[in-house]
Amino acid sequence: MNNKQIEIFDTTLRDGSQGEGISFSVHDKLAITEALDELGVSWIEAGNPGSNPKDADFFKQVKKLKLNNSRICAFGSTRKKGLTAKNDKQLADLLSADTETVVIFGKASALHVTEVLQASLDENLDMIFSSIEFLRSEGREVFFDAEHFFDGLAQNCGYALKSIKTAAEAGAARIILCDTNGGNFPLVVNAGTIEAADHIKTISGKTPSLGIHAHNDSGLAIACSIAAVEAGCTQVQGTLLGFGERCGNTCLAALIPGLEHKMKMRCLPAGHLSRLTEISRRVAEIANCTLNDDIPYIGAHAFSHKAGMHADAILKISSSFEHIEPSIVGNDRHFLMSEQGGRAAIAERVREFDSEIDKFHPAIDALSRRLKALEAEGWAFDGADASFEILVCKELGLYKSFFDLIAFRVQSEYPAGKLMECCHAWVKVLVNGQYEMAAAEGDGPVNALDEALRRSLTGFYPRLKKMRLTDYKVRVIDGKAATAAKVRVLIESTDGVSSWTTVGVSADIIAASSLALVDSIAYNLKRAAV
Amino acid sequence: MNNKQIEIFDTTLRDGSQGEGISFSVHDKLAITEALDELGVSWIEAGNPGSNPKDADFFKQVKKLKLNNSRICAFGSTRKKGLTAKNDKQLADLLSADTETVVIFGKASALHVTEVLQASLDENLDMIFSSIEFLRSEGREVFFDAEHFFDGLAQNCGYALKSIKTAAEAGAARIILCDTNGGNFPLVVNAGTIEAADHIKTISGKTPSLGIHAHNDSGLAIACSIAAVEAGCTQVQGTLLGFGERCGNTCLAALIPGLEHKMKMRCLPAGHLSRLTEISRRVAEIANCTLNDDIPYIGAHAFSHKAGMHADAILKISSSFEHIEPSIVGNDRHFLMSEQGGRAAIAERVREFDSEIDKFHPAIDALSRRLKALEAEGWAFDGADASFEILVCKELGLYKSFFDLIAFRVQSEYPAGKLMECCHAWVKVLVNGQYEMAAAEGDGPVNALDEALRRSLTGFYPRLKKMRLTDYKVRVIDGKAATAAKVRVLIESTDGVSSWTTVGVSADIIAASSLALVDSIAYNLKRAAV
Repeated sequence: MNNKQIEIFDTTLRDGSQGEGISFSVHDKLAITEALDELGVSWIEAGNPGSNPKDADFFKQVKKLKLNNSRICAFGSTRKKGLTAKNDKQLADLLSADTETVVIFGKASALHVTEVLQASLDENLDMIFSSIEFLRSEGREVFFDAEHFFDGLAQNCGYALKSIKTAAEAGAARIILCDTNGGNFPLVVNAGTIEAADHIKTISGKTPSLGIHAHNDSGLAIACSIAAVEAGCTQVQGTLLGFGERCGNTCLAALIPGLEHKMKMRCLPAGHLSRLTEISRRVAEIANCTLNDDIPYIGAHAFSHKAGMHADAILKISSSFEHIEPSIVGNDRHFLMSEQGGRAAIAERVREFDSEIDKFHPAIDALSRRLKALEAEGWAFDGADASFEILVCKELGLYKSFFDLIAFRVQSEYPAGKLMECCHAWVKVLVNGQYEMAAAEGDGPVNALDEALRRSLTGFYPRLKKMRLTDYKVRVIDGKAATAAKVRVLIESTDGVSSWTTVGVSADIIAASSLALVDSIAYNLKRAAV
Repeated sequence: MNNKQIEIFDTTLRDGSQGEGISFSVHDKLAITEALDELGVSWIEAGNPGSNPKDADFFKQVKKLKLNNSRICAFGSTRKKGLTAKNDKQLADLLSADTETVVIFGKASALHVTEVLQASLDENLDMIFSSIEFLRSEGREVFFDAEHFFDGLAQNCGYALKSIKTAAEAGAARIILCDTNGGNFPLVVNAGTIEAADHIKTISGKTPSLGIHAHNDSGLAIACSIAAVEAGCTQVQGTLLGFGERCGNTCLAALIPGLEHKMKMRCLPAGHLSRLTEISRRVAEIANCTLNDDIPYIGAHAFSHKAGMHADAILKISSSFEHIEPSIVGNDRHFLMSEQGGRAAIAERVREFDSEIDKFHPAIDALSRRLKALEAEGWAFDGADASFEILVCKELGLYKSFFDLIAFRVQSEYPAGKLMECCHAWVKVLVNGQYEMAAAEGDGPVNALDEALRRSLTGFYPRLKKMRLTDYKVRVIDGKAATAAKVRVLIESTDGVSSWTTVGVSADIIAASSLALVDSIAYNLKRAAV
């Protein structure tokens, strides 16, 4: 670790809330604040107190939280043209948030000043200066976001530099160089940052430090942030999970390990990097967003290996197909079962629940053949860990059956009859020599079957009352056979504590679903019995 | 546009199939090949003919396609240690694919040679040389993937350079520098590429050109590819949608516009860039994958604007919050919670079959509202042109009904009875005031319904005898509602001359399928009636 400290500045609660489908309650915002503080980011930009009452309420409530690592700041813009800073309602709102630090954005592009703001170039400079001066006179530390800085530099270099020099002269503590529309390349950001640093060095008094605020419209937000840090920026703005308008902001979870582990800079308190995966997933839960599986470092698939050759190589040198140890960021390695998977990968998976078995064990050969045969029929155990475990136990002779599904019928009937929903099902099961039947209606045929099956078993196994399905996926395996094609169904279930996934394959979607449902229930009962 | 031509090399069908949850049928692979050719990539790496029978079948069938822009290549590795190239089964399999160009990978990292391969450094160099020499003697052009090149360069610079020099001396036409575990930064890739280029320049004979193969484990695949091109690489490998093991390969759809529009290099045939969005979405449909909305350039949200201030600025200068015009890549600007942008696109679609209608036509407004309502319910007409046309005709009062599906029942029953298959259905239709019923068995419930429905109508419309379904896809719209979630069904049909796609949405997969089936038959009859 070298001495360089990078300030991580998270704007999930402000710029992140511009993302499509993102909508935070005050409660969500407080929970995310706690998670970010636990992770240890330096700054949390929490919103614009003037823009909506929710944000104003948040700033009141956040004072009750005891934060250990993060400082909260409020966000707004420079004063409106034609007003004085003192008379600007928006600046007054910013003060009302009562944070020690405030962030204001202003224009660094001459074109945007004249065309969008429709103000004179000089007036814009005064808007920057007088706003910062006013906020400082009210006791605030001020960060200045130089909007469109890099585009401004390309169009009118002198004016872009003058705008940040003005902010520096007014006493801004940080100047953040923004690639507002996300269009710039890393080399441009690197050169522009060096130019900015050279320029504000000439100021008498305290020189502000520089920050970078990038967007991912060109797929380069992380690269641009690294390029700016290489040029001397000490603050990096972004959102933990990349939330943000259009293609999102810099994804901090995908950037921090690069800065800290590879570039040896300090971003988080010592020891906190290993909590990155857990806290990122928690924030996704709070935001009610499905995290992409392929996000660098923290994604569920970030350390998944499918090709047999790769899996074998990893067991020899982990760096062969892993750029870092997954545990550094608190993630795990996974070997996917697939037609490309080899014996080494299978043995590794089996060892997770039977430590005696290595890749030379005779059962591995039989299992490998069985897997290949099932995969040829369209089965895939990628991500269907529970079905895989049941399959292995059956193959090793370790499986104890809890129930048999003897018969079922599922019916979809249109239009609905007077006394019955469109979809209904009955099932007959055998448990410890005893037959039981149950029937149910549902929103769809699989829903009806699921209901009927669990109803038939709950008398024998009360713990099934707590079990519910949380995700259902269907894939047509060979679409060419059209409606006679096979389908693969994946079902994710939970008992409120942990969750697991099962798979079923058939030409009949109902039959495929029944296989996955039976495995899911069996897995739940098997785990309870251990 | 400057003169520099970049070869786009797509490995969706090979490296992309390593992605978790990706599983292509031969039919899918052929459809993706056609889409990539239409887009105009230079190379399609299609698989490893020795690794599984599906790939061998693909190489046979792909010969029947007439490709205009893309060349197909097969992928394998250098010979195994201890064998001669001539006796290596895997190289023989590679030849059996019968492609003009083959790609082989070999190790460029000394550490991996000794630890993973457990071969001597000299033997690995001979494996590279003799494999390329043998394939060339069999008339093949050979591309060499230098696995772990950048890591190898850091660990044992001399050996990494010797490995690619060996490939160059053996006559490889391209040498592809691979960041196999995705851990390197753009500056390292840039410097390593310059070093590689300097080194292979010294070879007498033809100097191979260089390619880059990056992975996204550090969130830098696009940046590393650009850095390599800046250093002289003329081939860029990746997968159109970023599919690939772990965090995926370089996403070509997010890279090509940067290279072509911003760096002024030629990647695709002139005029093809504007088809990028449409073709990318088609490939996602074929792969049955949900495309992330925030993918640069092609994502559904890539040009979406939420903040009121931003939308206002865009109307003044589009570059204020858009780095490029969306139309350059065939995407659209969206103002969220506003109607703008939608009407023009809808009018454009309607004009395809009714040239009289422009975006000011009153029907467009009603249609726009109707589409919004349907989309809120989970309908999506992207790629379901036939259903869209039927919807528009109904909205314009131009639709003539050919039949009504009055009632149906579909049943799945296990185990099968003595006299009946597991799945069977009956339907009742009304045609020109006449009722007709029919029943059928099937491989699955939808297959039974499809059979019964067409059986009931063939007496009235003999042309339906020639119609058949060619593809069937199911997507769960909100997986979190599990088995009570809505599903969207897409059906592709043909009459032997042309083909069309229809869509249906419901909580009941059978009901959703019936809607798509009814549309499909109606569309066939409608076209015949024109």
